[in-house]
Amino acid sequence: MAVRRFGEMIKVKDLEAYKKWHANPMPGVNEMIRECHLRNYTIYSRGEYLFATYEYDGEDFEADMAKMAADPNTQAWWDVVKPLMQPLEDRKEGEFWSGMEEVYHLE
Amino acid sequence: MAVRRFGEMIKVKDLEAYKKWHANPMPGVNEMIRECHLRNYTIYSRGEYLFATYEYDGEDFEADMAKMAADPNTQAWWDVVKPLMQPLEDRKEGEFWSGMEEVYHLE
Repeated sequence: MAVRRFGEMIKVKDLEAYKKWHANPMPGVNEMIRECHLRNYTIYSRGEYLFATYEYDGEDFEADMAKMAADPNTQAWWDVVKPLMQPLEDRKEGEFWSGMEEVYHLE
Repeated sequence: MAVRRFGEMIKVKDLEAYKKWHANPMPGVNEMIRECHLRNYTIYSRGEYLFATYEYDGEDFEADMAKMAADPNTQAWWDVVKPLMQPLEDRKEGEFWSGMEEVYHLE
């Protein structure tokens, strides 16, 4: 199956706390991300913005994301990190991070 | 040698023109990028922002970037695409695209 690439952006409210948590994520968080077939996952910051990029190489993205959302470790993590972020004002309904459009790619 | 990852952001002034050019870059541009050991190069857009991410797996980043900057095909390309972008107001001296800080990575 072809790898899918994702780019997303959001604002950060407390960058220092965000960096501190992400330097050492809570137990099970990284393991669940990989179990759900996300890889090469990187988050960058600049000013008030965060940018995330990752690849998905599984077979059923929606099912894997539902699995992640149902994971107690992931839920505990989100309870801590989501309040550190501020979704974009013009986000689409249901978005937390806002999806971006890929305009160029070179392997 | 370890792969280096980069994330950068900038504003776009004319997204439609930017997308059109990047859907089919000028001859030699992609070839020079790869010759200079950049890979997995992706540019995303959302609203007025562009985000670029790429990896470098060569031996001398500065030398490769100088080689790219001296390439006539690349110069012709930059002459066309740079005017479509607007560097961030708070960029560092000498920056066109602004570098971002990596705050999280999972292979």
